[in-house]
Amino acid sequence: MIQEQQIPSDISPIRLGMVGGGEGAFIGAVHRIAARLDGDFQLVAGALSSDPERALRSALQIGIAPDRSYASFDEMADREAERADGIEAVAVVTPNHLHFAPAKAFLEAGIHVICDKPLTSTLADAYALKEVVDRSGRLFVLTHNYTGYPMVRQARAMVANGELGRIRLVQVEYAQGWLATKVEDTGSKQAEWRTDPARSGAGGAIGDIGTHAFNLASFVSGLELESVAADLTSFVEGRRLDDNVNIMLRFAGGARGHLWASQVAAGLENGLRLRIFGEKAGLDWCQEDPNYLWITTLGGDKRLITRGGPGAYPAANRVSRVPSGHPEGYLEGFATLYREAACAIRAARSGTPIDDAVHFPDINDGVRGLEFIDAAVRSSAANGVWTRLRTA
Amino acid sequence: MIQEQQIPSDISPIRLGMVGGGEGAFIGAVHRIAARLDGDFQLVAGALSSDPERALRSALQIGIAPDRSYASFDEMADREAERADGIEAVAVVTPNHLHFAPAKAFLEAGIHVICDKPLTSTLADAYALKEVVDRSGRLFVLTHNYTGYPMVRQARAMVANGELGRIRLVQVEYAQGWLATKVEDTGSKQAEWRTDPARSGAGGAIGDIGTHAFNLASFVSGLELESVAADLTSFVEGRRLDDNVNIMLRFAGGARGHLWASQVAAGLENGLRLRIFGEKAGLDWCQEDPNYLWITTLGGDKRLITRGGPGAYPAANRVSRVPSGHPEGYLEGFATLYREAACAIRAARSGTPIDDAVHFPDINDGVRGLEFIDAAVRSSAANGVWTRLRTA
Amino acid sequence: MIQEQQIPSDISPIRLGMVGGGEGAFIGAVHRIAARLDGDFQLVAGALSSDPERALRSALQIGIAPDRSYASFDEMADREAERADGIEAVAVVTPNHLHFAPAKAFLEAGIHVICDKPLTSTLADAYALKEVVDRSGRLFVLTHNYTGYPMVRQARAMVANGELGRIRLVQVEYAQGWLATKVEDTGSKQAEWRTDPARSGAGGAIGDIGTHAFNLASFVSGLELESVAADLTSFVEGRRLDDNVNIMLRFAGGARGHLWASQVAAGLENGLRLRIFGEKAGLDWCQEDPNYLWITTLGGDKRLITRGGPGAYPAANRVSRVPSGHPEGYLEGFATLYREAACAIRAARSGTPIDDAVHFPDINDGVRGLEFIDAAVRSSAANGVWTRLRTA
Amino acid sequence: MIQEQQIPSDISPIRLGMVGGGEGAFIGAVHRIAARLDGDFQLVAGALSSDPERALRSALQIGIAPDRSYASFDEMADREAERADGIEAVAVVTPNHLHFAPAKAFLEAGIHVICDKPLTSTLADAYALKEVVDRSGRLFVLTHNYTGYPMVRQARAMVANGELGRIRLVQVEYAQGWLATKVEDTGSKQAEWRTDPARSGAGGAIGDIGTHAFNLASFVSGLELESVAADLTSFVEGRRLDDNVNIMLRFAGGARGHLWASQVAAGLENGLRLRIFGEKAGLDWCQEDPNYLWITTLGGDKRLITRGGPGAYPAANRVSRVPSGHPEGYLEGFATLYREAACAIRAARSGTPIDDAVHFPDINDGVRGLEFIDAAVRSSAANGVWTRLRTA
Repeated sequence: MIQEQQIPSDISPIRLGMVGGGEGAFIGAVHRIAARLDGDFQLVAGALSSDPERALRSALQIGIAPDRSYASFDEMADREAERADGIEAVAVVTPNHLHFAPAKAFLEAGIHVICDKPLTSTLADAYALKEVVDRSGRLFVLTHNYTGYPMVRQARAMVANGELGRIRLVQVEYAQGWLATKVEDTGSKQAEWRTDPARSGAGGAIGDIGTHAFNLASFVSGLELESVAADLTSFVEGRRLDDNVNIMLRFAGGARGHLWASQVAAGLENGLRLRIFGEKAGLDWCQEDPNYLWITTLGGDKRLITRGGPGAYPAANRVSRVPSGHPEGYLEGFATLYREAACAIRAARSGTPIDDAVHFPDINDGVRGLEFIDAAVRSSAANGVWTRLRTA
Repeated sequence: MIQEQQIPSDISPIRLGMVGGGEGAFIGAVHRIAARLDGDFQLVAGALSSDPERALRSALQIGIAPDRSYASFDEMADREAERADGIEAVAVVTPNHLHFAPAKAFLEAGIHVICDKPLTSTLADAYALKEVVDRSGRLFVLTHNYTGYPMVRQARAMVANGELGRIRLVQVEYAQGWLATKVEDTGSKQAEWRTDPARSGAGGAIGDIGTHAFNLASFVSGLELESVAADLTSFVEGRRLDDNVNIMLRFAGGARGHLWASQVAAGLENGLRLRIFGEKAGLDWCQEDPNYLWITTLGGDKRLITRGGPGAYPAANRVSRVPSGHPEGYLEGFATLYREAACAIRAARSGTPIDDAVHFPDINDGVRGLEFIDAAVRSSAANGVWTRLRTA
Repeated sequence: MIQEQQIPSDISPIRLGMVGGGEGAFIGAVHRIAARLDGDFQLVAGALSSDPERALRSALQIGIAPDRSYASFDEMADREAERADGIEAVAVVTPNHLHFAPAKAFLEAGIHVICDKPLTSTLADAYALKEVVDRSGRLFVLTHNYTGYPMVRQARAMVANGELGRIRLVQVEYAQGWLATKVEDTGSKQAEWRTDPARSGAGGAIGDIGTHAFNLASFVSGLELESVAADLTSFVEGRRLDDNVNIMLRFAGGARGHLWASQVAAGLENGLRLRIFGEKAGLDWCQEDPNYLWITTLGGDKRLITRGGPGAYPAANRVSRVPSGHPEGYLEGFATLYREAACAIRAARSGTPIDDAVHFPDINDGVRGLEFIDAAVRSSAANGVWTRLRTA
Repeated sequence: MIQEQQIPSDISPIRLGMVGGGEGAFIGAVHRIAARLDGDFQLVAGALSSDPERALRSALQIGIAPDRSYASFDEMADREAERADGIEAVAVVTPNHLHFAPAKAFLEAGIHVICDKPLTSTLADAYALKEVVDRSGRLFVLTHNYTGYPMVRQARAMVANGELGRIRLVQVEYAQGWLATKVEDTGSKQAEWRTDPARSGAGGAIGDIGTHAFNLASFVSGLELESVAADLTSFVEGRRLDDNVNIMLRFAGGARGHLWASQVAAGLENGLRLRIFGEKAGLDWCQEDPNYLWITTLGGDKRLITRGGPGAYPAANRVSRVPSGHPEGYLEGFATLYREAACAIRAARSGTPIDDAVHFPDINDGVRGLEFIDAAVRSSAANGVWTRLRTA
């Protein structure tokens, strides 16, 4: 029942580099575990910090050879591109404003990019990066990792199959409490850059977690968001970016909804929840209990589908590793994006098409996320007027 | 530990009449059980239906003497006011558009009124009724019954005590699925009048359940709602009133929030849920599991307070009947409003002040509910523009 | 959707008396609310306490006329039997050792008896009372109130329908924590008599809550318990009766199971839970969340049936009062036993047979409960040897 | 907040071999992911199947070089022991009866052993293996993986700190449904050997999952089990080993408890749950929702501790990888045992003592598990007589 990665004829690990993710970073370590979990990648190079000493120390701690620890991403892109055994892909795990430049550099060096979200700190950068990606012919994977959960894949498959009927309602929320006080003044690196417009961009909570919620809602519902009416607030005195957002949603085709993202919901941890209701049924999924998916029907049935259980579909089982009742979590979902990336990179190696079942958020999802931030920020600035997404 | 009503020297039951609530009605039967549960009331008169034969048949079935079954509320008000043993209070349990006239008639006949929600079908009627109430000197109790749950009282007490700190966020939702298809065309009396503007007023879901959610949020938070930005939708083709509403909320003092009310959330039953977050802590309460109240704190504690348990406050225990672990439900919460009404009526009997601990929604809550509907309908008609409540 | 009692042609309330249940008693007040909730009974007489002054004061507080407040149950039985408007039924709500004598007196006076559980304090008394009941031709209702919950009726109906297949496993538990310290020494009347062999009988926790668990398991599974292997323990130093029991179960036909009852499970409230597994499916019900019933099938379906919801059967809906999503609780379940008793008493009034759908625990269930206590106590005394129930 | 393994000066991965775990095996793949997740091990050799062709094919699929795929564990032990770059540790993931011989071979070749549970198929083998381990001076890690969950470590720490007070009750259960029919006749390899006494030993469910439950209860409570009264049953016709067990427990010091293990609980998945109650508080943990730990106190507090949250202790955080709200699961818990093994192996490499914080189940836990099976089987054969564990 356990599924290790489906090994194609070529099973040699993919050589991976990393930009950012030095000592003290949260998401870099997550990326490394995710890359390792299914055995598809080998981390061999890094520009882990802009501080060269810290970069080297970090590299040694995680087993990167000293000669492949670089002081800058530019140097790394150049040098690795020259090596016969150079990296095939790079993970970019820096703050938002430092996604664009390294992503561009590696893509132009012919190296696939796996990039943390949101795509960039400005919409202009997002559009520019899309051009770079399109031109490069390289793969671009954006780690909206919640799409990697099996029960999220299940939910998407059920909507796509029409089991919910035509979708009417999309209610999504992402509530955290860790920024309920001014922790950016207490030495928290994580809080510092997330609340700094220069590094995060125009959105605070909306960029950091709102884009996750938006991406998840879009991924599962299959709907295009057309316009938003947003109320962005900064509750913590002196904070420069929003820490709470309420956004009403209108989708192409008539569905309506609401998105709530908050980082000041005192005592909450990582409460991402998606509910979708169609003409025939509804679904409910919570990130903190990710192995469960509730389905409620017009007829009143209340059914719990479990990861790996008999109600789970191939689209979900494809990204499951252990039998039902053996919970999978955040790291497994994240690892699934790396597994999907590996499938795509191996297909690129061999010049074969990517298997249809493979899915990962890409440059277009990234652009869409920035358009969402942009529209919400504009709406809120105009006191909540309904505002179309740039290219909706 | 069990608490029956605190019997004052005068323990004779209060003579109660009812308008509406004949055969097939839902809420009339609920009112009767609620009136009976604590033994404070005796139902002795009724104008249970506008169809005289049905009125009489209904009266006999519930033990009302034939000579006190009336063909109209006017006749009932007149005749009961004349009797030495006439009713002291009347429950008005008709559809919305039939609250005003009987309430007025009984108040003017010197009879206390317990009235179902929302107050009236129009804001004008609401204002007019307020004048009648004020003039009459009689009690007016509006059955926003969810305020009768012990853990709702607990929540309110904790907010009032400052345990949550200054309130920032109020997220409330009330999701049902029973109107997900056009059941008003299938013979459902309940659905018929609720979807008929002539009987319900300008609001569909917003009036039927949105006002409950609004009242609950106001009751617990103690905050005044200032303005709304609303998106009212009718998803079911041919339906004349909204069946789904998303409303962004701005409260006096700066708190923000969101209210979602839906009757097309396929498969959901009676999902009223309130979450409030302050600077120090948050709370979470769900009507379908009403004996539990979650408290989460800035420091990360997650505590479950149970009805009747050691964490419950006097304000909650005052309206509890059985020890913790013995669940109370909807009828008990409803009965609490009748118990509160009885306390107030007995105080009126004896000319003593009402005990400070007694609480019931009153005419002002009713007016506020209609102002909420009015503002939301206007906002939605103006494409979601932020709209102040009439007297905010 | 709401169901008030089905009113037969004779709707006059049943005249009820009460033995025990004076000031400070828990269960007396519960019986009174239960009797009142559906409007079938009118409490008109009482011998509420063995202390005459307390008896009278208690009677006045709950609206019993002074001339029908009696100093003893004997006097009450005699005098009420003589009155034309004498009580038709009596509720016996005294401690266990005081069930037998009043029950006998009223039955022999031709008055129906509604008696709290367990039936008696000794097995001999139980057998003797059964003879009295059989001879009297009067009704005897034992308030194993948990059988009144709609979802318990649902569970029983599903087992009876064969939906679980042949039953293999019956796991039942009833865990409380309120006796985790020696509260019987701190003035708690409730704790005093429950831990006193003279008043409770040979069983402590096993009698007080173990019999509830046993009754529930028998009621739902429809199985006869044949033998037990028991381990009864008194954890609190100086306590004279068991406060924790583990009992392995063997049922006629081969099913096995386990019963855990504890009053020293620190912090738990009223954790009665029943799980039954058959060859085709399993069920899971918890008293603290009584509106839900989980069904899991061999094929892996996990389905939640809700009280009043579309999956609920007539046997459950018959004893439901409000629509799904409007939780019912402990008092409603208790009231259902009174409603069932009322149905039976009205049938007796009119000399018609009791409707087949009516169900209440009776003298035989009471005897069975005492046999269960007896077998468990003997097994434990013999170091857990498998011991047959007396008449198994 | 993320914790990757604490890298000592020597960070080179540990060279690992595997016995068993070829194509179609469940637990072999789990071990491989667990070994990989934290980057401590490199799988370089294997005797993955007793069928040489299948062994080789399996080896190639998971990246083992052909010259290090062996046809037998003996050959592998010999040859690897000779190599300068030979394996330092081996994972034995074969059915129970094939643990002893390879474990012995590798230990005697000086190679550390990580072995699946239960230790062996007979108690005699267990005692013999203990002698081998003790003589060898090598590490022996038994993968009772549930001890690797952070909230299990938390529970253990709280008990050890005395926060529950003196322990009274240990209720543990492990309920699955996958053997509710005779799947061993339908081609399921997993079911075949588990229901075969020659391969599993004297215990079916009790060996496969009962030992996990027993180990978990012992690990958290810190108590020594003294005696058992057991009722082992085979419900599925023709099945040769127990598929359901109820076992009453008596611990040294007076605590009592119960263990239920079942593989015929239709529809359940992997329901391992532990509840412990002491004089001051109780705890409740469920494997299927492993990031939560409930604490209930004598005073009635109900507190939810979350993995990584503010209530989590260093003992729990030490084995956590991601912040609270980002669920960890089964694979992470399993990986923790590999991480602990790595710490111990690295200490052995360098001749330094193992850090006190490191914990893994060892040969003594394995022996204790076989003694538990042995006592339960003897008790059940003697109709449930209380039976002491061999060396209790």
